[in-house]
Amino acid sequence: MNREKLVENIRRKKSFLCVGLDTDPLKIPAHIANGPDPIFTFNRAIIDATAPYCVAYKPNMAFYESFGALGWDALERTIAYLKTNYPDQFIIADAKRGDIGNTSKLYARSFFEHLDVDAITVAPYMGEDSVTPFLGYPEKWVILLALTSNKGSHDFQLIEDKEGTPLYQQVINKSSQWASPDEMMYVVGATQGRMFEDIRKVAPKSFLLVPGVGAQGGSLEEVVRYGMIDDCGLLVNSSRGIIYASSGEDFAEAAGREASKLANQMATLLP
Amino acid sequence: MNREKLVENIRRKKSFLCVGLDTDPLKIPAHIANGPDPIFTFNRAIIDATAPYCVAYKPNMAFYESFGALGWDALERTIAYLKTNYPDQFIIADAKRGDIGNTSKLYARSFFEHLDVDAITVAPYMGEDSVTPFLGYPEKWVILLALTSNKGSHDFQLIEDKEGTPLYQQVINKSSQWASPDEMMYVVGATQGRMFEDIRKVAPKSFLLVPGVGAQGGSLEEVVRYGMIDDCGLLVNSSRGIIYASSGEDFAEAAGREASKLANQMATLLP
Repeated sequence: MNREKLVENIRRKKSFLCVGLDTDPLKIPAHIANGPDPIFTFNRAIIDATAPYCVAYKPNMAFYESFGALGWDALERTIAYLKTNYPDQFIIADAKRGDIGNTSKLYARSFFEHLDVDAITVAPYMGEDSVTPFLGYPEKWVILLALTSNKGSHDFQLIEDKEGTPLYQQVINKSSQWASPDEMMYVVGATQGRMFEDIRKVAPKSFLLVPGVGAQGGSLEEVVRYGMIDDCGLLVNSSRGIIYASSGEDFAEAAGREASKLANQMATLLP
Repeated sequence: MNREKLVENIRRKKSFLCVGLDTDPLKIPAHIANGPDPIFTFNRAIIDATAPYCVAYKPNMAFYESFGALGWDALERTIAYLKTNYPDQFIIADAKRGDIGNTSKLYARSFFEHLDVDAITVAPYMGEDSVTPFLGYPEKWVILLALTSNKGSHDFQLIEDKEGTPLYQQVINKSSQWASPDEMMYVVGATQGRMFEDIRKVAPKSFLLVPGVGAQGGSLEEVVRYGMIDDCGLLVNSSRGIIYASSGEDFAEAAGREASKLANQMATLLP
């Protein structure tokens, strides 16, 4: 999906919500967990309930990999279900991959050709030749880790060089020479608050994928105040806060309710 | 596998070779590629031919993921084959994972419980809480990216802070507070030559996983001269140079021959 279409969806739905499909079989409600095909059945119900309120879905690979071939298969069917029934949804594989060139090329093939998602999250540590193999697929996106939402983000991402530029800004500066803001986004955690101001100085036109609202404690208002740009430029993700809103038989309705709450809040914040 | 056992295997076999199972279905010899179950059949033949000359195998996840559920299944059977027939081999999942705490915990479960490998490579960018969930599994290892073998390693890993300490050394310094050298290794590319001297200043007792000999052009002699310690402290990996030594029906013999050449060279270099 290209930027124009993504922004059009955001404007039409008045939402920049991304729902994180971090489907943990240990948290799936019992009546589904004990039935056949629990991961896919859970995902399908969550998608049907939340699709009116969001513009993107983000399955985190870890949750599917933890069940090996079975989990991978459930993910493939989830993506196929989205593409068939909700073709306007932007699909992000949260994979945080990144390896030497010939290997990143294979990851790109997996995610953009085999799974055919719109975007993949990539870790920047290994530099240019680990990232560029993901570029050049038409209407596909790289979402590079910049300033993540977790406590450990402070260990290395804030280290300043001799000129006082922190690592995450160097990641943005350097990578913006590899790709335009129409093919690369950055991950910036909602927990980073006013640092969005600094991010916008180095990435004025880029879309930001913002995890950390909800279970991790980030504030939607702050993200919007310091991070929103003319065409929105934000995809704000909530995972656990939506998909585990209830552990009973009403889990899908509860997820829809939470997604709708966030979307309503977003509608008031959009320009 | 604990360090004592790993070192014992290295001494007994006079080899610190790791064979990279980067099995690319496009490079599998035609007579296997056109038969049933090509990935596993190729891996089994390579393992049988090379096992006498190496102490470790390192499947890179990208190659298996590029075939989705099928590839994952072939990997699971490859690991089971190794554990049944060659229980002395140290198995490394080259995955370069790393995510927020609850997600890294799931990756750890996949790799250490489901696949039951000895070690996983982890990317350090997200800091402590992305790495520590992989620790604490008895006889399992984290292998953290420090100074990688690719050209892009120079983009961020060499950035110096105000005191002149490059990022890769900060990664080693900080992470050595999280784990002892008996549960954490570092990835250092064979292409980094004399930089192994600097690495040994900050990681005097750690095992190093060294890719980049062979197709990537690193020198085994240099790695040993600047990187070897009393109990060896090195696992040197070769992937393409061994497993694609021949594309004909003699591919397994050719792989065995290349592995044996490297092992012979290693035998003369061991203390």
